[in-house]
Amino acid sequence: MAEEVILLNFWPSIFGMRTMIALEEKGVKYEYISEEDVIKNKSSLLLQMNPVHKKIPVLIHNGKAICESMIQVQYIDEVWSEKSPLLPSDPYQRAQALFWADFIDKKLCVCGRGTWRAKGEELEANNKEFIDILKILESELGDKPYFGGHKFGFVDIVLIGFYSWFPEYQKFGNFSIELECSKLIAWAERCLEREKSVAKSLPDPEKVIGYVLYLKKLYGIE
Amino acid sequence: MAEEVILLNFWPSIFGMRTMIALEEKGVKYEYISEEDVIKNKSSLLLQMNPVHKKIPVLIHNGKAICESMIQVQYIDEVWSEKSPLLPSDPYQRAQALFWADFIDKKLCVCGRGTWRAKGEELEANNKEFIDILKILESELGDKPYFGGHKFGFVDIVLIGFYSWFPEYQKFGNFSIELECSKLIAWAERCLEREKSVAKSLPDPEKVIGYVLYLKKLYGIE
Repeated sequence: MAEEVILLNFWPSIFGMRTMIALEEKGVKYEYISEEDVIKNKSSLLLQMNPVHKKIPVLIHNGKAICESMIQVQYIDEVWSEKSPLLPSDPYQRAQALFWADFIDKKLCVCGRGTWRAKGEELEANNKEFIDILKILESELGDKPYFGGHKFGFVDIVLIGFYSWFPEYQKFGNFSIELECSKLIAWAERCLEREKSVAKSLPDPEKVIGYVLYLKKLYGIE
Repeated sequence: MAEEVILLNFWPSIFGMRTMIALEEKGVKYEYISEEDVIKNKSSLLLQMNPVHKKIPVLIHNGKAICESMIQVQYIDEVWSEKSPLLPSDPYQRAQALFWADFIDKKLCVCGRGTWRAKGEELEANNKEFIDILKILESELGDKPYFGGHKFGFVDIVLIGFYSWFPEYQKFGNFSIELECSKLIAWAERCLEREKSVAKSLPDPEKVIGYVLYLKKLYGIE
């Protein structure tokens, strides 16, 4: 049976970027279906494929939907296991990779949103926490080229999409990630050298800023 | 080398119950170290073993710490793989199990906390959402004896700890889970027949209510 792989996505999504990168790393051919309006007008395909959360990205493999980006990346790693392993095979190393990915999901997403939603003291506290989180990640990276060691892998995939949002965070949060976390910037640039997976999957940061300006207007945030 | 397995836990934790059940299902002998005061006075062992989140449960296997209950259960399943598999081996079935476990973590924990922290309209909205979430889970269970089918497994482990908190939710939330979700209650009672793992790991619900009364007093919630 020919494989049918579809990714239902919306371009600014850091979550969707993960799944795209994983598919590209594995060399999986897929159809990309762009969701036009994830806020006000979800497509019937999205509602049918992810009835619980009604959120992109959705990976559809031979008609079966897999939801939640981290689960999609693990699924891709398991199904196309012969090429470019993304998670380590050792249980303890796997647990460590899952721990840091979970940390990124629990902490960074919330603070990232705060940079354009919060105001005044709340914004200041948010920005401090944001930088603290990045510093914890930078310390975990240490002197390794990638989070898992010498090879690009799971944690790199989970984190790298945020890089396309860094200019947005800096603009609205009014801080410099480069000054605070230069090693993390060097890591991101290293990841971006993967032209066929990472560079191809990350949007233009200027376009992200434009999207956030649209969101601020939509939600009436000055 | 003899295996050294330690579980650092605090008895009311639904998260810690998961790890205990997984260890018991696998027949792993372990030392249980009880954290006395997770709110105001964390032990030096906890701070050393989980410096990022400073939270129980922590699984310590031959000196190495594994944090986050869902990651611990996966780790236990991988290390002691010869007995009682907890996650399915098929990638799609695994993805489904991880999806529902993630759903429980993202949705049920927040609403559970709301039953004793929220008030007035907020409490009403919280309780409605709580029951809606349970109904979604009940619908996913369907007529199967367990979430994964005929065998007790990952999603059952992730969810069953909440059952020991049901009387607390009902008391402070003022609703009846039994009336709303009788099939889910039947599932929980089926799980509790596993005396050596589930029944052994769940605390007395009356003790949980006492603990919540203590929390309400501590946080000044009438």
